[in-house]
Amino acid sequence: MTIVIRNGTVVSPLGTSASDVLVDGERIVAVASASSGLADQWAASADRVIDAAGKYVLPGGIDAHTHMEMPFGGTSSVDTFSTGTTAAAWGGTTTIIDFAVQAKGTSLLSTLEKWHQKADGNCAVDYGFHMIVSDVNDGTLKEMETCIDAGVNSFKMFMAYPGVFYATDGEILRAMQKAKETGGTIMMHAENGIAIDQLVAQALAEGRTDPVYHGITRPPELEAEATYRAITLAKVTGAPLYIVHLSAAQALTAVANARNRGQNVFAETCPQYLFLSLDDLGRDDFEGSKFVCSPPLRPREHQAELWRGLRTNDLSVVSTDHCPFCFKDQKELGRGDFSKIPNGIPGVEHRMDLLHQGVLAGEISLSRWVEISSTTPARMFGLYPRKGAIAAGSDADIVVYDPAVKQTLSVETHHMNVDYSAYEGLEITGRVSTVLSRGSVVIDDGAFHGSTSHGVFLERELNQYLV
Amino acid sequence: MTIVIRNGTVVSPLGTSASDVLVDGERIVAVASASSGLADQWAASADRVIDAAGKYVLPGGIDAHTHMEMPFGGTSSVDTFSTGTTAAAWGGTTTIIDFAVQAKGTSLLSTLEKWHQKADGNCAVDYGFHMIVSDVNDGTLKEMETCIDAGVNSFKMFMAYPGVFYATDGEILRAMQKAKETGGTIMMHAENGIAIDQLVAQALAEGRTDPVYHGITRPPELEAEATYRAITLAKVTGAPLYIVHLSAAQALTAVANARNRGQNVFAETCPQYLFLSLDDLGRDDFEGSKFVCSPPLRPREHQAELWRGLRTNDLSVVSTDHCPFCFKDQKELGRGDFSKIPNGIPGVEHRMDLLHQGVLAGEISLSRWVEISSTTPARMFGLYPRKGAIAAGSDADIVVYDPAVKQTLSVETHHMNVDYSAYEGLEITGRVSTVLSRGSVVIDDGAFHGSTSHGVFLERELNQYLV
Amino acid sequence: MTIVIRNGTVVSPLGTSASDVLVDGERIVAVASASSGLADQWAASADRVIDAAGKYVLPGGIDAHTHMEMPFGGTSSVDTFSTGTTAAAWGGTTTIIDFAVQAKGTSLLSTLEKWHQKADGNCAVDYGFHMIVSDVNDGTLKEMETCIDAGVNSFKMFMAYPGVFYATDGEILRAMQKAKETGGTIMMHAENGIAIDQLVAQALAEGRTDPVYHGITRPPELEAEATYRAITLAKVTGAPLYIVHLSAAQALTAVANARNRGQNVFAETCPQYLFLSLDDLGRDDFEGSKFVCSPPLRPREHQAELWRGLRTNDLSVVSTDHCPFCFKDQKELGRGDFSKIPNGIPGVEHRMDLLHQGVLAGEISLSRWVEISSTTPARMFGLYPRKGAIAAGSDADIVVYDPAVKQTLSVETHHMNVDYSAYEGLEITGRVSTVLSRGSVVIDDGAFHGSTSHGVFLERELNQYLV
Amino acid sequence: MTIVIRNGTVVSPLGTSASDVLVDGERIVAVASASSGLADQWAASADRVIDAAGKYVLPGGIDAHTHMEMPFGGTSSVDTFSTGTTAAAWGGTTTIIDFAVQAKGTSLLSTLEKWHQKADGNCAVDYGFHMIVSDVNDGTLKEMETCIDAGVNSFKMFMAYPGVFYATDGEILRAMQKAKETGGTIMMHAENGIAIDQLVAQALAEGRTDPVYHGITRPPELEAEATYRAITLAKVTGAPLYIVHLSAAQALTAVANARNRGQNVFAETCPQYLFLSLDDLGRDDFEGSKFVCSPPLRPREHQAELWRGLRTNDLSVVSTDHCPFCFKDQKELGRGDFSKIPNGIPGVEHRMDLLHQGVLAGEISLSRWVEISSTTPARMFGLYPRKGAIAAGSDADIVVYDPAVKQTLSVETHHMNVDYSAYEGLEITGRVSTVLSRGSVVIDDGAFHGSTSHGVFLERELNQYLV
Repeated sequence: MTIVIRNGTVVSPLGTSASDVLVDGERIVAVASASSGLADQWAASADRVIDAAGKYVLPGGIDAHTHMEMPFGGTSSVDTFSTGTTAAAWGGTTTIIDFAVQAKGTSLLSTLEKWHQKADGNCAVDYGFHMIVSDVNDGTLKEMETCIDAGVNSFKMFMAYPGVFYATDGEILRAMQKAKETGGTIMMHAENGIAIDQLVAQALAEGRTDPVYHGITRPPELEAEATYRAITLAKVTGAPLYIVHLSAAQALTAVANARNRGQNVFAETCPQYLFLSLDDLGRDDFEGSKFVCSPPLRPREHQAELWRGLRTNDLSVVSTDHCPFCFKDQKELGRGDFSKIPNGIPGVEHRMDLLHQGVLAGEISLSRWVEISSTTPARMFGLYPRKGAIAAGSDADIVVYDPAVKQTLSVETHHMNVDYSAYEGLEITGRVSTVLSRGSVVIDDGAFHGSTSHGVFLERELNQYLV
Repeated sequence: MTIVIRNGTVVSPLGTSASDVLVDGERIVAVASASSGLADQWAASADRVIDAAGKYVLPGGIDAHTHMEMPFGGTSSVDTFSTGTTAAAWGGTTTIIDFAVQAKGTSLLSTLEKWHQKADGNCAVDYGFHMIVSDVNDGTLKEMETCIDAGVNSFKMFMAYPGVFYATDGEILRAMQKAKETGGTIMMHAENGIAIDQLVAQALAEGRTDPVYHGITRPPELEAEATYRAITLAKVTGAPLYIVHLSAAQALTAVANARNRGQNVFAETCPQYLFLSLDDLGRDDFEGSKFVCSPPLRPREHQAELWRGLRTNDLSVVSTDHCPFCFKDQKELGRGDFSKIPNGIPGVEHRMDLLHQGVLAGEISLSRWVEISSTTPARMFGLYPRKGAIAAGSDADIVVYDPAVKQTLSVETHHMNVDYSAYEGLEITGRVSTVLSRGSVVIDDGAFHGSTSHGVFLERELNQYLV
Repeated sequence: MTIVIRNGTVVSPLGTSASDVLVDGERIVAVASASSGLADQWAASADRVIDAAGKYVLPGGIDAHTHMEMPFGGTSSVDTFSTGTTAAAWGGTTTIIDFAVQAKGTSLLSTLEKWHQKADGNCAVDYGFHMIVSDVNDGTLKEMETCIDAGVNSFKMFMAYPGVFYATDGEILRAMQKAKETGGTIMMHAENGIAIDQLVAQALAEGRTDPVYHGITRPPELEAEATYRAITLAKVTGAPLYIVHLSAAQALTAVANARNRGQNVFAETCPQYLFLSLDDLGRDDFEGSKFVCSPPLRPREHQAELWRGLRTNDLSVVSTDHCPFCFKDQKELGRGDFSKIPNGIPGVEHRMDLLHQGVLAGEISLSRWVEISSTTPARMFGLYPRKGAIAAGSDADIVVYDPAVKQTLSVETHHMNVDYSAYEGLEITGRVSTVLSRGSVVIDDGAFHGSTSHGVFLERELNQYLV
Repeated sequence: MTIVIRNGTVVSPLGTSASDVLVDGERIVAVASASSGLADQWAASADRVIDAAGKYVLPGGIDAHTHMEMPFGGTSSVDTFSTGTTAAAWGGTTTIIDFAVQAKGTSLLSTLEKWHQKADGNCAVDYGFHMIVSDVNDGTLKEMETCIDAGVNSFKMFMAYPGVFYATDGEILRAMQKAKETGGTIMMHAENGIAIDQLVAQALAEGRTDPVYHGITRPPELEAEATYRAITLAKVTGAPLYIVHLSAAQALTAVANARNRGQNVFAETCPQYLFLSLDDLGRDDFEGSKFVCSPPLRPREHQAELWRGLRTNDLSVVSTDHCPFCFKDQKELGRGDFSKIPNGIPGVEHRMDLLHQGVLAGEISLSRWVEISSTTPARMFGLYPRKGAIAAGSDADIVVYDPAVKQTLSVETHHMNVDYSAYEGLEITGRVSTVLSRGSVVIDDGAFHGSTSHGVFLERELNQYLV
């Protein structure tokens, strides 16, 4: 099966060009200049020709931070791999990297196996895994090697959530030493959870139980502190470090300083930190619970700093931290005690569209949009050039994007399996027209044409940003 | 005429891929994956097939800072456009951007016309112009608009050389206001020439006349100061700023700080600052004169900082500031008075090779090599994607590079029209095998196959890094 | 004649103590603890006993920056040494350091002689001189040595006012070399006057002529730039540097960075930058002209940064830059052209009182108040411990200050020879009760008891902050 | 009993003066100028007249960080309060502030009581206490208030030594909240002990057991990290913070940044970090053990940075961290396992002399010497003006110091109760001539004339540096 996409504007991190794309089977096999006439030749024998006139042709989005059907207390995040990857496809994201979550006392490999079982045959688009390391010991450190051989080479740790995911600085140091040795990357949830838990306990003891106190008890300084601490441990060990879901301007400064020195430190932020704020956490009638995630939404003035960080490349990636919990029965668990609200915001479907608003607002360029949403995550997580590029040899993960059409985000229309939208009623401009995943059309003409058994597991190479 | 380049490793700023390239006439018309088999099909009807097995396929180098046959006192830099662009081709550089030099009291347009007359029909590879603005007045400010329309949109000014090129801060301010208005970029020679000239006069008065005093009388702090001043004036006016030939760690800090804030400030360094040092200026028997350029070569410890800057992207480009003067009769003018030594070092031929040593030493990645020597200058100076890319639609400026072959740099073997080499005897690894300029083979099998009437003038678009 | 001041709280930069002070003739001869009983013994034979119960006993204020009867165009600042030093005494300032102003083409020594003639026998309190160096040449550089021998060792230069006081960077460099050699201190008016003059000319050409444009055409960045430039030149030469009338947060950052590195860089700010703002420059009916000084008043948010700088000691001194011009006939010269408004604000009388408001507001401590207004200027300008201390052997320049009494600042009540108050109607708390200058009571019981022939010229030692 | 000290140069943090001092009983009752002739009058009736001609008259040194007879494992630091305070007196230190050490499970008040029992009646000079808080709980937090009422308002915590003194970030946060509430100051041992303990365990497991590994396993970055973390927690809570024994340049940067922002953050360093280095830890034959303390001695290049910090006031105090363990039997416990070497270096006797070498070397001024060794600790720890000043009303703690005499430091001649000197053989210039403690001569003519029952406990006021 061959497909030709023609007349569009191909956008890459380096610029745009009027080029036509030839897909044969699962791969892009050739890219030709519009003026070469080759597309005519290709089209003659193609199974399908997609006219992208007036549209952008983008490499499929890569969401490097999702939590599908993640166990949490007695419940789970509500998107399965099936519903979540389908929603991703609707939004132009053709790869997700989800987190396998080690439970204390279990092995990394059994964890990985369990996650393979959840995902295999149940994904609409391709997927990879990061590994959450909850239990650092000689055995799990050794297992990190095996994980890397199995294509899982990024290991997330937590400086928050004592008793659950929390790793001590000693454990982090040991894992980082192993990462340095093996070429793996340590991903860090950087909040000083030990101090935060004191503030939370004090707030609850004083009757400050509304969702907004989730934000107030997690001050930006304690994110910056943990970020700097992780950077220091990475410096001492030589490990590559990737800060997940950076939200605070002060933490950004810590990252920028490290990057200026040339340290292998990287950071992502998320759309919710760019478009939502502490004000949303403060909505009344417990509506604020819909916006509970960690780190928390910050005061509005942090947003401009994050956009700036995206421009200066101190923030390299935008992922969603998609972790949906329904308002009813799930978020509601925290009525009267904000600390019991399940943490997470749904967003896998809207990342590409929301970032496009940044293009329209002049915050980032078209090229930078593609870079932070697709190419950089591909390079960071060892998928490039298979993913993240409109280039000969790359997987035919392609988004044809109409930059002019308007849409309104809403729970009524979204495809995520969750009973609210964090962006309810937001009017935006731009939307995917057609989405290909490994050469198959999965979204077209406002309908899903894919299959949830289509997606395959991606064995990833090491981080390509390390010299 | 069609050419297929196959079996090579195509290197881009984003990574590498096993891809084949189809050239038709002056352009790359398609790029296909090696595994697609398309190259077989193309090769069948091609005029020529170049086997790049074991070699890199790179976009042709772009040297954004050269001075061919530049008038200086009663003499001129000794490479003509003809000899200089030929030497460039030998070294894998297929585009130069040279400086048209306004003389005080003349117009920008007459200057541009004069430079066109020098270059037209005399270049082995393509070329563009920057404009040196020596005389800021209402007329020349107005002419900047016309220059931009004519594809010359970068304007160099000097904070050094009072009485010659020096512009006052008020003149710089006015030119920057015009740049902001028109989208042009101000390029700055950032040294505090007013203070330096005092130090020079004092040194000479005290009999310190050897070439090494050229370096000592131009301390790094006075480069940093001027850099910060230029950045401030750019901030006040909103103009994009490109610092040329940055040499000192302290100046790099000023640039890095501005970039962290998100200001449109960019900088280049040159191979001489990465590979040579103040020690060379101190060579005896007046040998030091061969290394006189401004800013001067710095103490060796600055080199590591510059490499770091290239990694962190605070330095975005490496150009040569190629400005060759012969030792005999020219450099010798400064015996007994270092201030009379013509400033400049020959280098247009060696930039790609020297930077490859940085790759081998682990200072930069393969991708970064291509980025700083080709893709970024293309984007910075409005040539991308016509130049700077191995991509469908781009000009077929292609370098097939053998990374394993060894060579020794020497005046005996170089092709620049100058009687010494600044790198005499340096043994390096890697060398161009074949060079195409707009689809024509100009270097192949150790011989020049081009023509000095081949190169064309490039009308450039505006800087593509501005959001 | 002996005077005992007892029952008060002596305030020093290091703390407070309940101590009694014995004055004999012009000097403090002993300080005793209140509990020692020595004051009883002293009082028995004293000519006068001042009861300072409930009051502070402070070393007399030192205003290190005044311009009495300064020639300006065809006119002069309106306070003579006689009226100005009397006003100073009223406000608790017992030493001023005024600026002798070299006219181009004249010598430093003749300038100094001229200023001696103006001041000698005409001052109510003691005085010293700084020297404004307008004309840097071999002769004046040599004269700097003679000035230092004559007790004038601080030399002010200007990076603004081209054609009047402006010194080129080369001239500054030479003067700094001489300062390094002799131990003198360079004082700097740090604004990029070359760039500013362009902005001024553009504003006037566009009809923006109101006083507020005086502020708008002198942006904070151009003060920061000049400050950094002066610091760099001081670093290159090794000269001590004192930035006068620092007004902008960005300039403060430049100073703080230099001080962190341990460079001998110091800065003063003025009450007008702490209490007034750009809003005042924008007052209508040409009232804004009353607030025209250079650097200009800044947006209000700079004030908090300046107070912070006073706490962190990045700002070491508060002086007034007292330079009074009447609204009528003088400020009015600039109607229709803000650039013609004489620059300067009257303030010598109010410095101690205004800074006391900072104490009451918690911005600075009592000790810091004394330090920045008396002890540090004494040490900085070589007067300590003769001045700036309540200590045995020091001159009996003593202020008994009532911290509780309220007053309203107004042209109706002030003693400066100028027809408006920049603080008209401001209600403040605290006021001097009694002021001694070299053992003589000059202010007491709301009346002036001094003589304008009392003050003597102070030959100053070198800056005591240099290691 | 009255004593007159005359003809000397009184040194204060603000300068020097030729003044005479009258002591009556335990206090200085008056200071008079040498020229006043009052000293003649005083001398006539004085019990003793000390001629300080050619000598400095200094406020007695204050060592704010000592550990006398501190329990450690089954042993103790070897100086008792008696021997330690006597040694202090020999070196010109007339006040120590020692640490009461809470054992886990015990109360602060019982701890304080225990330390009073050790010290009362056993000290040659005056003393105060800080409290080490090892066990943060509701009870001990409440007890902090009582401690403050009892004159102990500085509370030391540890980010190192898990299982012994280590406090979690949550515990630190709680103690800081209490400090903010009460006006107390938190003192911090800032090293990331959790990470360090991993490095230590790894070194031992790999057979790297020599003393030098004590230094290598405690990298500067982990001191900087903890310093920044403590600063952040202080910022979140608003507590004043005093970093003890800062040793690393990187930690100094963290302190300097906080101070620039105006945060109430202070730091001390110790003579061992200014005069010794990692090289000493590497001495062979287990000699390195004599230099084991924490944080460890740093590479030599840190010394210049610390001296700079003392000049810029980012380091405010020099204390000794005097904690002597004999080489024989005590240090030797760590043969074959550096982690078992008791931590500590003897030094209480040499602080004033060693810092005087800094004066002679031009690192600090005479005034700064007095400030960092006496006046600032007095103000920081609520003893000023009772201590830290040569002023009327102050305790007559006075050092007459001969700046010219030479001495050689050695275990043979020192008075500390320990079998080695960390400065063995070091030749230095300057030595105390006479020392008064509260009006009593304790050192004179090379002999001890004091009594170990002379010293009294000092109830301290709050930190005087807070606005």
